[in-house]
Amino acid sequence: MTAGHFRETVDLARCTRLLNHGPVTIITSQHEGRTNVMAASWAMPLDFSPPKVVVVIDNNTLTRRLIEASGVFGLQVPGVAFARETLAVGTSNGLELDKFAAFRLQTFRAQQIDVPMLSGCTAWMECKVIPDDSQRYDLILAEVVAAYADRRVYSDNRWHFDDAPGLRTCHYVAGGTFFSTGEPFEVQATRPTVPESSTPQP
Amino acid sequence: MTAGHFRETVDLARCTRLLNHGPVTIITSQHEGRTNVMAASWAMPLDFSPPKVVVVIDNNTLTRRLIEASGVFGLQVPGVAFARETLAVGTSNGLELDKFAAFRLQTFRAQQIDVPMLSGCTAWMECKVIPDDSQRYDLILAEVVAAYADRRVYSDNRWHFDDAPGLRTCHYVAGGTFFSTGEPFEVQATRPTVPESSTPQP
Repeated sequence: MTAGHFRETVDLARCTRLLNHGPVTIITSQHEGRTNVMAASWAMPLDFSPPKVVVVIDNNTLTRRLIEASGVFGLQVPGVAFARETLAVGTSNGLELDKFAAFRLQTFRAQQIDVPMLSGCTAWMECKVIPDDSQRYDLILAEVVAAYADRRVYSDNRWHFDDAPGLRTCHYVAGGTFFSTGEPFEVQATRPTVPESSTPQP
Repeated sequence: MTAGHFRETVDLARCTRLLNHGPVTIITSQHEGRTNVMAASWAMPLDFSPPKVVVVIDNNTLTRRLIEASGVFGLQVPGVAFARETLAVGTSNGLELDKFAAFRLQTFRAQQIDVPMLSGCTAWMECKVIPDDSQRYDLILAEVVAAYADRRVYSDNRWHFDDAPGLRTCHYVAGGTFFSTGEPFEVQATRPTVPESSTPQP
């Protein structure tokens, strides 16, 4: 239950914001006592209300098998301090290795689903699969049924990574290389130059 | 054809790398002379070979209508210097406004599809829709048929943003706030602690 006291509920109506900037994720799964954990760069929001996500999980993986059997999975957003573990679970095979034990990963109990959630991450979403034909393209669609984040870097529906650098989210490139999430900046939209024919939406 | 001399072909076998780190994207579309351009944070790779992407495009949009009619779209990755335009095309409605004219956007001709591609971005992918039932979830699946990037920040299948800061990709949060793509870092995967029962994959 490491750092459990830093986890704070995120409003489901805004929870896609945890994933909107495209960070790398880690997926946990469990069915009939068998568990697994893998990294996934290919995960994104799909809808706001109810909040949905879509992830790409290869049909040949243990994770896929466990998720299809249980109908649930944990989706977590690791920080830069967790990048080595992210790479480790992303480059090893759950059919050959108990990754939780091998990489000494700590877990805690999910709120709404029966899947171990990974301690030491920055944000977490508990997901229930939406049955869909898209499986043939390795997609899994899911509804988010619980979400929480480490309040040291996420509160009031806003990221503030400067307050805990190790929890800064990251983005996977290839070959063990990541980008950390960079500095925030705010812009005003360019104004249209032909206002007489336009009604831009807010 | 602004900056056309900076655009360099990206090997299709590696082109998902342009999108792997989860940057915000801009989608261009065209059918029977009508064109549109919108921002999309919800875009990601789906497969390596042939390269595929999946994007979320609301069923009520002009972009969706044009893409469904033409079967093709342009997917571009803007840099931070293009964030104002990205927000502008993401918060205005193509049914009410010719966004290309209103925001003075420059385009150039695509190589493989009949869609205007947006000048001033960092990377580009030309996409052909894969017919699929997932449309009911606002998803569009597509194969990438051409890809190129600004060689000032992407060459030899590698990002190097420091060489042209305005072309650094970015990640959308909400309400006009973006993150720039941060610094790259490389890690070695954690070694498993139970090697006797494991064969980690490379």
